[in-house]
Parts: sequence; C-alpha cells; structure tokens
Amino acid sequence: MISQALLKEFKEKAGQENVFTEKADLVTYSYDAAVLEPVLPGVAIRPASGEALSQIVRLCNENKIPLTVRGAGTNLSGGTIPLRDGVVVLTNALTKILEINEADMYAVVQPGVVTAKLAAAVAAKGLFYPPDPGSQAVSTLGGNVAENAGGLRGLKYGVTRDYVMGIQFFDVNGEIVKTGSRTVKCATGYNLTGLLVGSEGTLGVFNEITLKLIPLPAHQKAMVAVFDNIDKASETVAAIIAHRIVPATLEFMDNFTIRAVEDYSHVGLPTDAAALLLIEVDGYPAQVEEDAEKVELLCRQKGATSIRVAEDAAERDSVWTARRSALSALAKLKPTVVLEDATVPRSRIPDMVRAMQDIAKEYNISIGTFGHAGDGNLHPTILTDRRDKAEWARVEAAIAAIFDKALSMGGTLSGEHGTGLAKSCFLEKETSAATIIYSRKIKTALDPNYILNPGKIIGR
Amino acid sequence: MISQALLKEFKEKAGQENVFTEKADLVTYSYDAAVLEPVLPGVAIRPASGEALSQIVRLCNENKIPLTVRGAGTNLSGGTIPLRDGVVVLTNALTKILEINEADMYAVVQPGVVTAKLAAAVAAKGLFYPPDPGSQAVSTLGGNVAENAGGLRGLKYGVTRDYVMGIQFFDVNGEIVKTGSRTVKCATGYNLTGLLVGSEGTLGVFNEITLKLIPLPAHQKAMVAVFDNIDKASETVAAIIAHRIVPATLEFMDNFTIRAVEDYSHVGLPTDAAALLLIEVDGYPAQVEEDAEKVELLCRQKGATSIRVAEDAAERDSVWTARRSALSALAKLKPTVVLEDATVPRSRIPDMVRAMQDIAKEYNISIGTFGHAGDGNLHPTILTDRRDKAEWARVEAAIAAIFDKALSMGGTLSGEHGTGLAKSCFLEKETSAATIIYSRKIKTALDPNYILNPGKIIGR
Repeated sequence: MISQALLKEFKEKAGQENVFTEKADLVTYSYDAAVLEPVLPGVAIRPASGEALSQIVRLCNENKIPLTVRGAGTNLSGGTIPLRDGVVVLTNALTKILEINEADMYAVVQPGVVTAKLAAAVAAKGLFYPPDPGSQAVSTLGGNVAENAGGLRGLKYGVTRDYVMGIQFFDVNGEIVKTGSRTVKCATGYNLTGLLVGSEGTLGVFNEITLKLIPLPAHQKAMVAVFDNIDKASETVAAIIAHRIVPATLEFMDNFTIRAVEDYSHVGLPTDAAALLLIEVDGYPAQVEEDAEKVELLCRQKGATSIRVAEDAAERDSVWTARRSALSALAKLKPTVVLEDATVPRSRIPDMVRAMQDIAKEYNISIGTFGHAGDGNLHPTILTDRRDKAEWARVEAAIAAIFDKALSMGGTLSGEHGTGLAKSCFLEKETSAATIIYSRKIKTALDPNYILNPGKIIGR
Repeated sequence: MISQALLKEFKEKAGQENVFTEKADLVTYSYDAAVLEPVLPGVAIRPASGEALSQIVRLCNENKIPLTVRGAGTNLSGGTIPLRDGVVVLTNALTKILEINEADMYAVVQPGVVTAKLAAAVAAKGLFYPPDPGSQAVSTLGGNVAENAGGLRGLKYGVTRDYVMGIQFFDVNGEIVKTGSRTVKCATGYNLTGLLVGSEGTLGVFNEITLKLIPLPAHQKAMVAVFDNIDKASETVAAIIAHRIVPATLEFMDNFTIRAVEDYSHVGLPTDAAALLLIEVDGYPAQVEEDAEKVELLCRQKGATSIRVAEDAAERDSVWTARRSALSALAKLKPTVVLEDATVPRSRIPDMVRAMQDIAKEYNISIGTFGHAGDGNLHPTILTDRRDKAEWARVEAAIAAIFDKALSMGGTLSGEHGTGLAKSCFLEKETSAATIIYSRKIKTALDPNYILNPGKIIGR
C-alpha cells in the first residue's frame, strides 16, 4: 500500500495535478490490449519533466513500491499491466520532440511522443522513421522501444531495435545512464541500448531516446492480389521472397479477416476472396516499377484471380488504413480477441498458414489469420468469449499448440508483441533453463527490490 | 597459477594436442593489434567442439582462472590481451559454417569462421554478408561479434550488430544460453543478443552465431576522387551525405596515408594529392548510375582535381585492397602505430579533419588520417616510437585531446574498435558514473568470479 506520506512526496515531485488516485483513473490504467485480468494500481503519476520522472523512480525504489511505465497501453502481451497497489507512471506529459537533425539524420525524443507524430514530423523534412506498429496513431515511442515494436514495414526496414541509436534512462535509483550515441557507429561501452530495447520497463526508465532516420523512399507502388485459395496466397509470399524481391510491406489476410475489415472500414475489399496479399514496393522509381512487375507476375503464376494496383496515394493509404484496422475490426465481433504473434522463418509461411487451419479445426475454435507474412510474422487471431470456460480452455490449449508449431519450424514465440506476462511461462521452451537464470541475474542485479515492472518477461 | 592437476583436466576435455604451454606459443597470444604491454598467459587451449569449449569455461570458473577468448587477435583496443597466467581459448578449431539458408537468408557459424570466408561462401549463393572490417581476410566472426566490428560498408549497410540474429553461448558455468532466432523478427525474452554483441568476451563465450544475409547488390560503381586540399575532400563528404546519397562506401585518405599505402601496394594512387575519397555506390543499376553521376558532380563542384571511375571489377578490387592495406602500410613506417577510432556525427567530418591537423601541430606528432568518413568514423593514426618517452607522453596527451574533441562534437570514443583495455578509463567521460555502475552490476551478476576476460570495457 502507498502511504499518505509517500503520496505527498509524489505530489511534491510531480505536482499535485499530476497524481491520480480516483477509482476511475486507476481502472483506466489497470489493463492493456492483452487478454489478461486487469490489476488495479494504487496511483497513477504523470511527471512533466525528466527531473520529476527521476524522483518518482527513486521514491518508488526507496519505498519498494512497484512501478509500471505506461505509454498508450496498446501492448498486446500484458507488459503495461501494473502491480496491485503499485505505481503507474504515465508518459503523456513527456511528449517533446527534442531535436530532428537533418544533416546527421537522427531525432531525439521524450518517451511519450506518439509514433505517427514523429513519423509525420520527419517526413515533413524529407526523412523517414520506418517502424510502424499497427497502433502507431496512438502508440508512444517509449512504448515501442520498451517492446521492440515491429510493424508492417519490418520486411525491408526492420523493427524499432534497428532504429534506436541511443537511450538516456534512469536506473532504479533515479540516476542517469547514457548508452549509444548520435553517431551511426558506436562501439563504446556495453551495448546497453541493445539490452534496454525490448526490456519492457524492467531494467530502467527511459528519459530520452535517439532514433535513426533515413531518406524517404522516392517512390512507392501498392497492390492488392486476390486469391480463391489460401495456400496459393501463402505460396506466393514464399515465391516473392525466394526471388529475392524485398517489398516494403507484404501482408496477408484470410477470408475471416477480410470480411471483418471490410465490414468495419468499407474500402471495397473483396469479401468472397479466400485470401488477399497487400503488397507495397518502394525505393528508386525504376526499381519499384521492375519489382512491382515481377511481383504481379509471381502473383498471377501462383493463381491470383485479380490484382489491383493503387492508382494514387489516396487509394494506397485507404488500403493500409484498412489493414491497420484489422485488430479493431476483429475485436468488434466477439467479447474476447486473442491476437497471437508466433513467428516462423519466412519460407515456412505456407506450412504455418495450414497449421493454423488445422489447429482451428482440432480445437474447434475460430482463428482469423492476418499479418506480416513477408517476415514470417503472422497474427493468428482467436475470437472467443473468455466467460465461456469450456471454450477458453480450448483456446488456451490452441495457443500452446500454436507456439509448439512455430518452435518446431525454427520460429519464435513473439515476433513483435513482446513476452510480457502472457508468454513468460513459455520462454524456457524456446530458450533454455540457463537462459532464464542468466536473464534473472541481470534483472536482480539492476533492480534488487524488483520494483521495475516486475513479473514481465521472466516471471517473478 | 594454473596447477598441473588443472592442466591435466584441460587436456582431458580438449585433447592433449590442443593444450599449449610452450613459451613460444604463449608469447604469440600475449598481445593483439592495440599498442599495449603484452601479457603472458599460462596456457592456450584450442577446443575442437562446443562440448569441449563448455567444459573449459566451467573449469576456469570453478578454479577462478581468468579466460580470454581469441579469434585472430586483430583487435585494436586490447580486447584480446589475456590476464597474466590466465587461459587463452583459441577458436581456430571451431571453424564450421554450420548452415547457409538461402530461402530464409541466414547463416549459422561457429565462432572461429574467418569473416571473408563466410562472405565468399554466401556470395557464391548470390547472398551478401556486408560487415567488412579492415582485417576481414583473417578476422573471425566470433571476434567481430564480440567487438561489434564495423568496416568500410557501415555507411549503407551498418555494422556487425545489425547482422546478428541470434547467439548460442555458454555462461560462466558452461551452461547453454540461447538468444535471438532464425526469424527476421524476434521479441522473445531479453535482447541478450544485443547485450552480447560488443561485450568483448566479458559476459559469455560464443558457441554458435546466427547471421542475417541479404541479397547481393546487382551492380557497383567505384571511383577515386583526387583533391589538392584536405578541406575540399572532407567538405565533399558532408555534401554527399547532405544530398541524401548513401554510398556503400565513402572512404577518406590524407596525403600521409596515400603515400604510405602507395609505397606498400603500388596500385597507382596519386602521391601528390592532398586527399582522396574512395567511393562506391551499389544497388539497382539505374540508381547506381544516377548516384554515381551525382557524386561525381558534387566532387567536381567541391574542387576535385580529377576523378577516376574503376573500369572493371579488377580495378575496383585493387582500390579496395589498397585501402585495406592502410594499417599495414602505416605500420611499416614507425615502430609504434596507434590507430584511433573516435567518431563524430558525419556532418562534423570537416571540423574533425581540421581538428586532427591542429592536434598534430599542437602536440608535435605525426598523425595520418584515413577512414570511413561517410560514417563520421575516421582513423587518425599516430606514428611514433613508444620507447621515446618524451614523444610517447605527447602521444598520450594527443589521444586524450582527440577524444575530448570528438565528444565535444557529440561524438563517441569508439566507432568500431571497441573499448577494451585502451579506452575503459575514458568511458565515464562519455557516459556517466551511473553508467559504469550499471555496467559493473551486470558484469558482477553474470561473472561473480570475474573470470570472463576481466578488465575489458569497464576496468576492474
């Protein structure tokens, strides 16, 4: 329990108006986008400066109160679910883009900057911040870095990790740790930047993040390929990769997802298609045209019934907006939506798509499948009602079966959603007992009181 | 001291023929390419299997004997200098390329595989492993990963870190830790891959490394631009970057280096030039032609006196071979060569080149400057004789001045050579006291007996 004396100290450090203890506030911060039990924190605090943030961290450690930093709460693995009676630190008053350096192509941001806002700000200067998680319109860069968020462009451009040049963060005592650089090469000290990316708030609290920018691609071309058979679509994905074409985006949607998305966004997706591929190539104009032609040819060879090339930016954007709405669209259909994230080497996509269909049948549940097929990163989505205990048991068994299948293909539990609470119990299956022990040693050394978002990644 | 009983155990685990205690052997492994005092180890061991490697690590920990893993010993920061009477573990019997997966574009290697050997093996399959440290003809991939080695192609393609998908390594007890994946996206567990890259053998011993491959670029064009004034050359670098052209390679050489290299390699470099830029653009053919034209125009606008475009692959290779010989060429001139590695944001290259000239004058020493100008990663090279105590004192002062200058421009102590022994005392200057404490906590937790290459990065 947080004492009145500590609350007073929080208010002194963060300002009276930035400390929230009303039930309505606490309920808001008790859950994220993962399907897990909500947990009510004791207080939510919104520091408005790095100094205040540092003091909150120090106070939590001194008082052994667990602390969970929360950006937009769009996390899908429970990484932002707080501890009972713990502190939630909100980053939505730390939203400054501190620098956009055009000459050296980097940006320095506070953790609460919204992903899409940075992307727009740098695009206005002819620069490109590629990582684009599905929730980019609301997700924060601090959250993206903490989760090593992926997105639609991972195939060609990589994920958040590939763009973090440096982090300035607070250790558990509220002291400043600096890692990385504004230079494109840096081999100084331990690569704590690497360690902190994807550490889900368990090893430190971000104050400033330096992100790499690249030149905007000169040209894009997007198309939608329609298939009357799901295998034909997944085999097209494998064929494109095998021909060493690297599209910016190569997304897959099965009929279940197509119908949900079209019903939600009305962009004119063909609801009778068995599967769609949404493909964008970008880069040097002549190469884009050549790659687009090759992709079109491969789609036709593999049996696409039609291919529609976006005629202008508006049409292109409408397709991507529709794709980005997939989770929201599916979430409307049933009380509980479990969005999975198991990932396989990309050549195994056809096998994985078939496996999802088999698992849906075997466990008698509904699985819609969409996602970043070009990365091997599908999002099998289970629509269910958690209150139906019999079905929920089958869902849990199906999730374990999905993980087993991915691992058996040389894949991984999570491509981009993180380990969080949801997958920590599966971690040893993919790694080893010594891996968990090694990870716990790091955690214990850096956070001996286990106050930094405890329970995430490696359990308790 | 290593007891006879322990030596016997080493021989049992690694094989009699793989345990070396002759003085001549020990001297060979007492130094690396950094200018530091050699330190004689007690034994060198060459395990020929992961199992043997794991047992050696375990035995060292149980007996509290320090262990330094050594690839080719080309390290420039003292990362492979052993501890007195400690163990040197050689990786030159762990040289298998375990897998090259063409469909999923990755390779799995043992740590002793030579960098250029992997590059050639994957190139034969139309694939590309871009990191190309200057010593790639002999350097090992284990060493490259331990040091996060850079190279000539960092500007466009990044450094070793950007290509390590996963590592299987032994913790200090010889237990297997697995991190990362064969999938292009992986957000499972802590990013221990990130932490281990560049950790200089202080946190674990690599057994297998999974490396990302990409398609080979379709086309290359290389050119040499000659300048009669060093500022014109460095300003051309800044202009190319400002025009958002991303060459694969953009190397700078001052007159001092040109003369040394030409004398060594006889490829026909103009020895009267004040500076050269060696530039290669690669990728889609039409883009390569367009970029090459733009680069040529910028060179002329900035005052290049001549530009020679390589007419064929042989001519191109000869230029790069000459460039790669720079360190060897300079090393012939004087008894002691200090190759520095301070790096600045790339727009600051003209300032940094001028600063090197000023520092050479101020401290009355010879500094040749060459390196990866496009990355901001210059290698100011000090030619001296360590036995000349008065000059050596000036050299040490000049090195400190170079670091101060780089940091004052927002740069870093090391772009690609690592921290090792040579720069550990400067680390706090760039980071903070809390950063060192944070780093030491990790080290102490993972290696409580301080046997894994102690003293490197964070001192003792």
